[in-house]
Order: sequence, then structure tokens, then C-alpha cells
Amino acid sequence: MQFSPRLQQLLQAFRRLPGVGGKTAQRLAFHVLEHDRDGARALAEALQAALRDVVRCSRCRMFAEAEVCGICSGPTRDSSTLCVVESPADVMAIEDSASFRGMYFVLHGRLSPLDGIGPAEIGAEQFASAIAAPAVREVILATSATVEGEATAAYLASLVREQGKRATRIAHGVPIGGELEYVDSSTLSRAIAGRVTVEQASRDRA
Amino acid sequence: MQFSPRLQQLLQAFRRLPGVGGKTAQRLAFHVLEHDRDGARALAEALQAALRDVVRCSRCRMFAEAEVCGICSGPTRDSSTLCVVESPADVMAIEDSASFRGMYFVLHGRLSPLDGIGPAEIGAEQFASAIAAPAVREVILATSATVEGEATAAYLASLVREQGKRATRIAHGVPIGGELEYVDSSTLSRAIAGRVTVEQASRDRA
Repeated sequence: MQFSPRLQQLLQAFRRLPGVGGKTAQRLAFHVLEHDRDGARALAEALQAALRDVVRCSRCRMFAEAEVCGICSGPTRDSSTLCVVESPADVMAIEDSASFRGMYFVLHGRLSPLDGIGPAEIGAEQFASAIAAPAVREVILATSATVEGEATAAYLASLVREQGKRATRIAHGVPIGGELEYVDSSTLSRAIAGRVTVEQASRDRA
Repeated sequence: MQFSPRLQQLLQAFRRLPGVGGKTAQRLAFHVLEHDRDGARALAEALQAALRDVVRCSRCRMFAEAEVCGICSGPTRDSSTLCVVESPADVMAIEDSASFRGMYFVLHGRLSPLDGIGPAEIGAEQFASAIAAPAVREVILATSATVEGEATAAYLASLVREQGKRATRIAHGVPIGGELEYVDSSTLSRAIAGRVTVEQASRDRA
């Protein structure tokens, strides 16, 4: 049986969301129509407002509602360090860890030639001009630990070194609180290959 | 760290959907803003169109875009049988099984006094006038096999009998293709209590 046209349209629109299949789309559509019409109205308006007002920061490409985002325009941030991440969600995760007070650069993806994602798509030109700022001394490459993430980090590191600045990569290894027997073997081999002498480790902590 | 106001608003709107928590809301919002702005626009418009045009059928309370839905106005349906279900999704499920050619009545819930859902909320008055139609001879109670669903069926059955019509309940038991050892014990005890003699069963199949 066919749903009525508007309902059909709503189901299709829900199905475009990631992770939403036919059954879930039906559950969402029926829920809002039966029990939460205000919520549906709020969602429609929030989507339109976000589409209208949310742009990319002209400096770091993070989501922003002005030309420059809150972090780039913040007076208390350390502009000598720039952390490069793949997505806005990564910025939120690092901010939540409260371990970094520098600036960011958001790639919105990672190099993946087969998917047509090259230097232009990840904003390489904008990245080059961001790291050219005299204040920047170190660029932390925090792309993901996947083949594509590593390739992206290697490519960006070459751009950083061209400008005579320091490129660093976040550490990879056994997660804190992780039990060795449950850690996957690639992480373990990375943790062993990247081992640090105990003296150096205690100096790092100091 | 706080998101920008529009983004915050969008996250909150997504979180109102059933089964969507903070992480999922963030994934959905970032996905539409980064990769599918057209999809977000389509969703906003589909929501608003559905809110404007989707109403309840004045006869069966199914979702409709006219005063009377496609099933109620369909010329090929058997108006002697009325099947009562809890939600529009149940109508779709029965239609997909292609085992019923009669009319429907959608309760949009089930009796649950503790949640403030009484006869008025499930449309008891409209139900009474629907079954009063001279053509209706049998009412199939297809509410769910829960305590509230059974109570709702019992209440509606009394309304049906008041009008001197036949009230039936869908069969409950072991699902087709289900292996006995994996069937839960309440279903099994129901299947045993509701056993039918083999002669009757073969006559039913004929």
C-alpha cells in the first residue's frame, strides 16, 4: 500500500539522514505527526535557520554564525599552535577534553582521491595561508589513524615543513584505562613501535 | 564548549525525535550541514507540508490528506468488516500482508488511564458511530497483545456487542516459521490454551 503523497515525501526526506532506513523513517514520521507536531515544527524551523545562518569560519573552517568563529576571535586562545582535525565533531571532542588552548583548522574530510577528495576539497590553500601567520609555530596533525587520515597528515606535514614550521602528530597507542588483552593488534603494534623511555615519559609528564 | 546558537537549536530539535540522543543529534546535524544541505532543505519542507496537509480521516482516523482517506473512499473494499488497530503503522503492516480487504479504524493509542488515555483519546465515540453503519457485521480487534491492548480490545468488544454485531480478536500463538524452543513462555502458554482441533483447523484452511 502507498502512503499519501505528503507522507511519502516526509518518509523519503527522513531516509536521507544517515543511519535512517525505511522502518525508522516511518517511526519518526508517525511519531511527529501523532504525538509531537510542535517538535516537527521546531525541527523544520531549526533546519531552515541553520541552513541560513551556519557558515564556515573564514579562518579555521569550523561551523560559525559570523565570518570568524568564537574560537578564532577568542582573545584567550594561544595562536602559536594550530590543531588540524577532520570534522567539527573532532573540535568539540578536543575542547571537551580541555587539553588544548590553541587554534584549530577543520578539513571537513580527508584526502581520498578515489572519492574525488583532493587538496582543494580539504581547503589546502586556506590551510597554507593559516599556517603562514607569523604567530604559528607548531601544527598538530590530529587526523584519524586510518590509511587516508595518515596520508592526509603526511601531505599537510609537507606543507608545514615548507614554511619552516614544526609539524607534530598526536600520539597513538593503548587508550588510558584500556586493558591490553582487549586492545586490537594494530593498536598494540603501534604502541610497541612508538614506545618511549621511562625517563623521557616522566619528563613529559612534568 | 558551546555550539553556536543555531546549531544548538538544531541539536535540540533533533533530540526530540524518538531514539535520538546527544551523539546521534550531533551526527545528524553535522551530516546535513557538511554533506547534504539539499536534504536538510527537503526535510524542512516535507515536515511543514506534512504538518499542513496530513490530517486524520474523518471515518477511520488513518492519516489522510483529504476528509476521507483512500481506503475509506476506495470502491473495492469490503465494508462488512472493520479492523481496529492502535496505529497507522499497523494499517500498513496489515495492508502489506494482503490478507484483509475490509475497512480500518485507527485508535492512535490504547487505553491507559495512568497516562490519561481514556475512551475519548482513542476515539470511542467515532468508533461507535463507525460500527453503527448497517453494512458492518464483524469487528476484528487487532490491538496489541499487551495488558493495555487486551483491556482496549475488551472495552471495544463490549461496544460492538451492544450494537448486536460480532466482535473477533486476531489469533495469538507461535509465529509461522518460529521454532518452539525460541518462543517465549507467555506466547507458548497462549498457543496451548488457544489450541484448535485438527479437523477445525483444516476446515479453516479450506
